Amino acid sequence: MRRAIELKRDGAELSPEDWSGIVAAFMDDRIDEAQMAALCMACVWRGMSLEEAHALTQAMVASGDVLHFDGDVVVDKHSSGGVSDIVSLVAVPLAAACGAHVAKLSGRALGHTGGTIDKLESIPGFNANLSTDAFIAQVRRIGCAIAAQTSALVPADKRMYALRDRTATVPSMGLIAASIVSKKIAGGAHAFVFDVKTGRAAFMQKPEAAAELARRLVEISTRFGRRATAFVTDMNEPLGHSIGTGLEIVEARNFLSRNAADSVTLSLSKGRVYNLVLPIVAAMLAAAGIDDGESRARSALASGAAYEKFVEMIEAQGATRATLESMEPLPNPQVVRAQQSGYLHGIDVIRLGNLGRELAARNSLAGLRVAVRIGDRIEKNAALAYVHTPDSVTLDLAGAFELSNQHPPSRPLIYPSP
Amino acid sequence: MRRAIELKRDGAELSPEDWSGIVAAFMDDRIDEAQMAALCMACVWRGMSLEEAHALTQAMVASGDVLHFDGDVVVDKHSSGGVSDIVSLVAVPLAAACGAHVAKLSGRALGHTGGTIDKLESIPGFNANLSTDAFIAQVRRIGCAIAAQTSALVPADKRMYALRDRTATVPSMGLIAASIVSKKIAGGAHAFVFDVKTGRAAFMQKPEAAAELARRLVEISTRFGRRATAFVTDMNEPLGHSIGTGLEIVEARNFLSRNAADSVTLSLSKGRVYNLVLPIVAAMLAAAGIDDGESRARSALASGAAYEKFVEMIEAQGATRATLESMEPLPNPQVVRAQQSGYLHGIDVIRLGNLGRELAARNSLAGLRVAVRIGDRIEKNAALAYVHTPDSVTLDLAGAFELSNQHPPSRPLIYPSP
Repeated sequence: MRRAIELKRDGAELSPEDWSGIVAAFMDDRIDEAQMAALCMACVWRGMSLEEAHALTQAMVASGDVLHFDGDVVVDKHSSGGVSDIVSLVAVPLAAACGAHVAKLSGRALGHTGGTIDKLESIPGFNANLSTDAFIAQVRRIGCAIAAQTSALVPADKRMYALRDRTATVPSMGLIAASIVSKKIAGGAHAFVFDVKTGRAAFMQKPEAAAELARRLVEISTRFGRRATAFVTDMNEPLGHSIGTGLEIVEARNFLSRNAADSVTLSLSKGRVYNLVLPIVAAMLAAAGIDDGESRARSALASGAAYEKFVEMIEAQGATRATLESMEPLPNPQVVRAQQSGYLHGIDVIRLGNLGRELAARNSLAGLRVAVRIGDRIEKNAALAYVHTPDSVTLDLAGAFELSNQHPPSRPLIYPSP
Repeated sequence: MRRAIELKRDGAELSPEDWSGIVAAFMDDRIDEAQMAALCMACVWRGMSLEEAHALTQAMVASGDVLHFDGDVVVDKHSSGGVSDIVSLVAVPLAAACGAHVAKLSGRALGHTGGTIDKLESIPGFNANLSTDAFIAQVRRIGCAIAAQTSALVPADKRMYALRDRTATVPSMGLIAASIVSKKIAGGAHAFVFDVKTGRAAFMQKPEAAAELARRLVEISTRFGRRATAFVTDMNEPLGHSIGTGLEIVEARNFLSRNAADSVTLSLSKGRVYNLVLPIVAAMLAAAGIDDGESRARSALASGAAYEKFVEMIEAQGATRATLESMEPLPNPQVVRAQQSGYLHGIDVIRLGNLGRELAARNSLAGLRVAVRIGDRIEKNAALAYVHTPDSVTLDLAGAFELSNQHPPSRPLIYPSP
């Protein structure tokens, strides 16, 4: 192991045999965490070639079980993590309503970003812990399932990620790509659609870095014989308008049930969720061999088929339509008001994301709803956000909304294909 | 701790408070070895400022006891480690014979390099494990002592070095300098003379790197209010001609007792030991306020005073003149002969160093004596080295002596002052 660390430290490439040996030895406790941490820091420093990232991904997949889907193409969709990122909640049933088979294994919330599993578990009765057989059977029967990744899949990733987190060795493009793709491969889907966020609340703040990760994800997936598409999308502000587990379920439900005409959802998010969900669903459908995806998706939203698929999915996993439809944000929110006039130049979205998590941890129907978008002209005393708190603590959040006399430069929601 | 690793990873400087907190927490097991390993790799990557190396040195010194010498200036001499490096064995009693007080705490052999303590322990009865009080009293009484560093001094260094060794994070200029200087400061001397080796068997292979380390050692020592001098010297071939614990004692004894006229010692080493020892002793004497050091040292060698001081020192530490003088290399050495004619272009001195250690581990009077120097014109079948083995195993060592038709470029024994 020391030789491998030395090689990486000095800028060399490790062989596939090195990587498989390292992961196997790490899982058998034959190499210690200090050595693994030093190797990870050397990877942050020196980078990893595509061959290395592929070899590490293979080694990590081999550390645990791998699901197998027979028959139709099965699609998975992955986001690198954002605030108010409800795309998975919406896109999975929507693609299924259009005929795709979607099998999404998902993680928990990480840092200021939300986790799809945590959000779904805010629906009373929802069971995210499906057995492998139940997960596969549900996808076959109704076309979609979203379940928590079990510890039997890629146990090496869990151990390595915990180590990287505490040793500040997370930001290595190769290690990140291997961590993401290994879980997708083990999840058994045949095609992946990746949404790599960029911006101040994204893991990859610079668009160039996000594009590099997006390319890596596609390249490694392709080496495993999988179809893959990647989007690079904006995370300088919340994607939707809700932040908090239950509030994001409410927003996703309203988006799906009232379709594109829903005034609250569309006006507050300025259509950002809609504008991102449609191309992502189209990519999922294309991977499944279904063309003309955007127009199919629009129809499935308008007809209510997408919402019915969402209800079918959560009912298959233990919740009910009635409990879903009874969910509403805690009443009497505090209103955060602008202290001056100006253009909204930026949002401290990490602060909002953390606050949303904290509030929702106390009550799953607590959280924030953001009423403004970057670029909006704001008048003094206008409502910036609504804070739904489980108690009467007053939060001074006006500072999280950065006003300026200048209109901010415009940024794309979806960056050009990486 | 994670914040500190992140800062270092991203190229920032840590504060003195950071460093003292890190070392204290590491010693209290409040931060784990994986975090320390990641930080060390980030230091290898990003380097350390002088302020950081000084702060780390202070923190490491504070992890254990510190010796105190009252009265006269006490000098210590340190080598970064070489093969057949008998300078300490010779320079300590020689400087003491010239009136200096020399207190040398020394480590064990590391890798292919020899350790002064291991060599002295090859003298039957020699006790390297002096108590602090006995060490200080011996320096006061007879002017010199060489003892093994106790675990009470700089325990943080022992733990950090073991961690760095297995995580391939040794080669950081700042970490190396802090490791060396912390032990010197804790040893209590008021002035230090450093011999930083450079060349293929040195830790710092490139002269520029050795010069940088030499500067660092002097700068950090000066910040502690110590006088310090550093030499950068050649380690492309054995310094003396003997490799092996007992054989190096024999060479040092012969050097001191038969003085500069000893034909075997001088002809085999081409005077390299002599030419290095004299300026080092002069620097030790200058630090102690004694001028005209080289001529005093020559006199102390010629009069036998230096040898008598060596005998006094080993007798104060439990050995006897009789056992010292009875030591001779194992008889009937195998002769390694040149397989062709040519100029000696290079020596695989790491291989010779490792072999010398292995042989001496089996019998303290086994080892190698090298009969040639780089640049020598060698005729086919000439003796290159004598291998004193404890058994009849035949070693094919001719390949360790690299012959060429070209005369090699000449290299200095002592590089210009760094």
